[in-house]
Amino acid sequence: MTRIACCRLAPRVGEPAFNRELVLRGLDGVDADIVVLPELVTSGYVFASREEASAAAIAADDPRLREWGSFGSLVVGGFCEAGEDGALYNSAAVVDGSGVLAVYRKTHLWDRERLIFTPGDVAPPLLETPFGRVGVLICYDIEFPEMPRSLALRGADLICAPVNWPVIERPPAGEHPPEQLTAMSCARVNRIFMAICDREGTERGVEWVGGTAVIDENGWIAGATSADVDLIRARDKVYSGLSDAFADRRPELYGDLV
Amino acid sequence: MTRIACCRLAPRVGEPAFNRELVLRGLDGVDADIVVLPELVTSGYVFASREEASAAAIAADDPRLREWGSFGSLVVGGFCEAGEDGALYNSAAVVDGSGVLAVYRKTHLWDRERLIFTPGDVAPPLLETPFGRVGVLICYDIEFPEMPRSLALRGADLICAPVNWPVIERPPAGEHPPEQLTAMSCARVNRIFMAICDREGTERGVEWVGGTAVIDENGWIAGATSADVDLIRARDKVYSGLSDAFADRRPELYGDLV
Repeated sequence: MTRIACCRLAPRVGEPAFNRELVLRGLDGVDADIVVLPELVTSGYVFASREEASAAAIAADDPRLREWGSFGSLVVGGFCEAGEDGALYNSAAVVDGSGVLAVYRKTHLWDRERLIFTPGDVAPPLLETPFGRVGVLICYDIEFPEMPRSLALRGADLICAPVNWPVIERPPAGEHPPEQLTAMSCARVNRIFMAICDREGTERGVEWVGGTAVIDENGWIAGATSADVDLIRARDKVYSGLSDAFADRRPELYGDLV
Repeated sequence: MTRIACCRLAPRVGEPAFNRELVLRGLDGVDADIVVLPELVTSGYVFASREEASAAAIAADDPRLREWGSFGSLVVGGFCEAGEDGALYNSAAVVDGSGVLAVYRKTHLWDRERLIFTPGDVAPPLLETPFGRVGVLICYDIEFPEMPRSLALRGADLICAPVNWPVIERPPAGEHPPEQLTAMSCARVNRIFMAICDREGTERGVEWVGGTAVIDENGWIAGATSADVDLIRARDKVYSGLSDAFADRRPELYGDLV
């Protein structure tokens, strides 16, 4: 079994030193094999300007990312990246005791993010880890079913997704936040696990849906913050009897998607 | 507004004459612009053999399909099709007062269906109707996110889906049946309407999840059996602010799907 935990945190925009301590205290407080942090946890989210984001941005080789790996877990968390090209990226780093293993630059930018960040143009990483194959997506990426599907087809057992899911419209009574419902369906139809870490708190009037969850390969919430899961179950794509979620695909019919 | 209704029926395997009357009485009892019937409503579902299915199969030009169009609605329903090639297909017909407008042969066959039916090899139809653009999928097709996505990209406002969703495993308390959850997410991420008609009753020990629903473009259930909806809302793909579910796609990253 693999223990997956999401570190629900409330970073503050404009206070990177506070955010750094917040993350370190958070990581120190969890005991898990894999830990997911929110999107842009180093910087906060609701930037007033590109300059404000730029002031909080760090490079992918910054020691403030490397130190996430000093707690014995594999950590996937979002950060505001200062690219070597001068651009800003809404990125996620995968970090362990050996350092930063991979960086993913969000490819689908939500709403006003595009006024600040440059979209990544490289497919998300998929890492062989001691626990299984771990892919990374960030927030709005998940709303494009092509993205979790691609990672699953490449062999992902688990997708770790730092998110900041702002409240747009409250769901009807009894319903999950819509972004969480979509993550549940993604897990189910791809027969993979999803670990979503949403941020907490309120920032400049923006609230977050509180969609943090570890989701199992049947699409159900295994834990609202953490869960012990058998990631290897993601390698069996059989729904029932003769039905296999991957073998039954008809790619020759999917040409409209590309 | 367009009134969409799903005709929840319990056909009986091996009793095509009963099923015919059941459908006609059902259609006579609804007052809607678009009516969806269950999958294989002409024949029932849990066939003991290919021969049993063959005995219930009808051709696409059979008057027993044409007569669905005599109630003033556009009707989408499933039937057991005897192909001109001698094969059996799990098909859906779109019928109005002018006759059978289109036939779709299910392309993703569930479980033991493949022992009886030949999978279709043509993409689902998309029809210009007085109410909007209507696409068709059948049951397990919906579990492949590529399928509703393709129809939506081709311009569907509404997907009508005859289904027979057998109970595999009960969902956790408070959760939708998993197939319905997936349909809700499909509607949401594609910003389209979905009208799902599941069958009722029990057949040879198989139960059905009761997943019938008209789902709106935000992914919420507009009605458990029928709803009045504004299909034109499906043409606006904007989630919020600058975010557009279609314009924000990055097809150059989706090559793994095909």
